[in-house]
Amino acid sequence: MTPPEGAVVLLSGGLDSATVLHIAVDMGFEVHALTFGYGQRHSPELRAAALVAERAGVKDHITVFLDPRLFQGSALTGYGEVPDGSALREEGAIPSTYVPARNTVFLSLALARAESIGSRDVFIGVNSLDYSGYPDCRPEFIEAFRRMAGLATRDALEGRPVRIHAPLLEMTKARIIERGLELGVDYSLTLSCYRPDGHGRPCGTCDSCMLRLRGFREAGTEDPAVYSTEGE
Amino acid sequence: MTPPEGAVVLLSGGLDSATVLHIAVDMGFEVHALTFGYGQRHSPELRAAALVAERAGVKDHITVFLDPRLFQGSALTGYGEVPDGSALREEGAIPSTYVPARNTVFLSLALARAESIGSRDVFIGVNSLDYSGYPDCRPEFIEAFRRMAGLATRDALEGRPVRIHAPLLEMTKARIIERGLELGVDYSLTLSCYRPDGHGRPCGTCDSCMLRLRGFREAGTEDPAVYSTEGE
Repeated sequence: MTPPEGAVVLLSGGLDSATVLHIAVDMGFEVHALTFGYGQRHSPELRAAALVAERAGVKDHITVFLDPRLFQGSALTGYGEVPDGSALREEGAIPSTYVPARNTVFLSLALARAESIGSRDVFIGVNSLDYSGYPDCRPEFIEAFRRMAGLATRDALEGRPVRIHAPLLEMTKARIIERGLELGVDYSLTLSCYRPDGHGRPCGTCDSCMLRLRGFREAGTEDPAVYSTEGE
Repeated sequence: MTPPEGAVVLLSGGLDSATVLHIAVDMGFEVHALTFGYGQRHSPELRAAALVAERAGVKDHITVFLDPRLFQGSALTGYGEVPDGSALREEGAIPSTYVPARNTVFLSLALARAESIGSRDVFIGVNSLDYSGYPDCRPEFIEAFRRMAGLATRDALEGRPVRIHAPLLEMTKARIIERGLELGVDYSLTLSCYRPDGHGRPCGTCDSCMLRLRGFREAGTEDPAVYSTEGE
């Protein structure tokens, strides 16, 4: 019997990445979870990531802090208010919660981490159906990143390119939740909200909360998260 | 008269990136220099970068420290010894000084920084002729990165993609030095060495020193750097 192979899983602490982590485990990978602090105002997601990783029994989990000067101008990093999801949906444009080059940066650092630890696989929870409209969540971006990564590293040149897995790319939020529940994901540990309250509870009304709540509704099950609006 | 446009310039503190910085200034850009600490053993290059940026009168210069756990296994980050350049040249394989996904990471973070500050231009000093044989210094890598970046950001989707400039890509080291001298680069401030001594002086015998010294020889001029072997 060969030992399990290692995979780097990008873990934000939200619903999607928690599901991806469990998909990687289900595929037989030993998971090296990787979380980033980048000055996000919803930093309680870092704690959610730690809880998700611990519960899933990952091989290791590191949280890397990146200089916020690299990620200015986003509502998620403190430039302006995070808007209500309902307002956003009407606009159609790329929302103010877009963070400069975030998935490019996260995938690049995951690529470095994978080569550092001798892993050939990277997982990311991007989703192009029920998502916020960010450019770096689209299939064509992931495909272009794969192509670039295939030219970038020593491992690639020596015939062992890193594989970029994006298993949620074409799944609805409801389908992601169904798959996660099959795999035993405890969604009560996850935090999807862009503007949690002082206790780290989700708001229920930002874009990310709305997508999540609609997903649970469409999956015919209840979101176990406790929202800040409950009991008010 | 329109105000000068800003450009992000990746600045390591070595000969190539110092030259690129001056090329960007010569093209009329207001330079935002960006330097990375990533656990490199040749950290005196960070001081060299600060001196180069200050002398060139850049708009701003930030040094960002990245978690060394992302860049393991390289002789440049303390895994094994930095080999002599002469030994390396004979091998032909990718040398042990290769750092996992380094240029992918640096370009990704420069992309984020550029979008953060409203700049449309990023400069990098990669060179595919007189270089160490790293995969992420080749024209095909740069081209693939450009393509990916063109799909990754809000600015790109709104018709203002970041331009990745690699003006040294097809220049010999001698030609780079000639161009730099024309532009007034003070190469005495730069540090190219992979294993400087305790005083930050270059060794003169590692791969990077050998390429640099040969470049000055071929350019018919003397390297103003003071090597640790001098006077011994």
